[in-house]
Amino acid sequence: MAELEVTPRTKLGRLPDRGRHDRDTINAILDEGFVCHVGFVADGQPFVIPTGYGRKGDNIYFHGSAASRMLRNLSKGLPVCVTVTLVDALVLARSIFHHSMNYRSVVVLGTATLVEEAAEKWEALRVISDNIIRGRWDEVREPNEQELKATAVMKLPITEASAKVRTGPPKDDQQDYDLPIWAGLLPLETRPLPPVADPAMKMQAEVPASVKGYKR
Amino acid sequence: MAELEVTPRTKLGRLPDRGRHDRDTINAILDEGFVCHVGFVADGQPFVIPTGYGRKGDNIYFHGSAASRMLRNLSKGLPVCVTVTLVDALVLARSIFHHSMNYRSVVVLGTATLVEEAAEKWEALRVISDNIIRGRWDEVREPNEQELKATAVMKLPITEASAKVRTGPPKDDQQDYDLPIWAGLLPLETRPLPPVADPAMKMQAEVPASVKGYKR
Repeated sequence: MAELEVTPRTKLGRLPDRGRHDRDTINAILDEGFVCHVGFVADGQPFVIPTGYGRKGDNIYFHGSAASRMLRNLSKGLPVCVTVTLVDALVLARSIFHHSMNYRSVVVLGTATLVEEAAEKWEALRVISDNIIRGRWDEVREPNEQELKATAVMKLPITEASAKVRTGPPKDDQQDYDLPIWAGLLPLETRPLPPVADPAMKMQAEVPASVKGYKR
Repeated sequence: MAELEVTPRTKLGRLPDRGRHDRDTINAILDEGFVCHVGFVADGQPFVIPTGYGRKGDNIYFHGSAASRMLRNLSKGLPVCVTVTLVDALVLARSIFHHSMNYRSVVVLGTATLVEEAAEKWEALRVISDNIIRGRWDEVREPNEQELKATAVMKLPITEASAKVRTGPPKDDQQDYDLPIWAGLLPLETRPLPPVADPAMKMQAEVPASVKGYKR
């Protein structure tokens, strides 16, 4: 497993046994999520904005509308933190103190840049689209030049990153195992409900493969 | 509806028609979510950390383990951004460009402080617990003094905040409505799966009310 270098910024201070720095773990979490939270700083104030994203190789691409307004003045790029969080279960212990969640999260630190080269921008948009709903790109009208110009895409290399993973049952204090309290996991799942056709559709069209085969 | 003052920092630059600044909308989103993303700055680098939270009145309380290490040196508090995002549906248009998500998000800006007063800290922990799984607090062992000391809780007043909401079907360019392409919504739902008892349980105990009645 390729390990990323652990820096003082990605070293876990609390509960370090939950930390992972290998690319396989980091990539698997990034590939399962589809909404990231992008953090950036403006006038000393942090901002955190949710947006769609996708990964290709060792880069994350994300829609940059919010951050790109700032980027125009930052030719060298924008320091960001991109965080992806998957919640798998509530961890219900015998004591409130040991309640937790089973989750998998990735934090990527670095400098994001606007994607300006046309071919890379096209590919980046496709990567984002495929990460949100695989195959949809091929079913619909592709972007035209004007739309491409109106879309801001940012790129962040995955070089300084860490994952944090909690799995398994609750861990209580030894004496609490004698308490007559139910403990365990409440798994959570995000699933699609039946698709809802646009009431403005002018013709019959079957629900397409991207929707029928959608999995989260 | 009580409206929060719109500041240059909470005024929406892009798609301003999706913006909301009334407390009812903001509170409803905060009360439906249970994981927030906290953004803060250290040495010019933004960090975004997921954590559990709860709202009471005009304050958000959240677990402050990550940020509290920094806070020890910041007696006046820590500039943060707390963001909560609920994804309701994928919005599948006839053109890639108009693909979107139906979502509800809240961004709260301000200065977070450590909750140090014992009674407020107790109440804050209860608020967070109740927001994650209502009623669980009353079923389990309460925190003891040592556990309270080991838990960092932060408070952020909801004074500078905005919500962003997208609902409804896709909106395509007029001429694209003639394309023979299925368009519509793919609603997403987070739901609990059957609870899994801790294999280390020493006695029979029924699945408790907090778990049986859990709703997201």
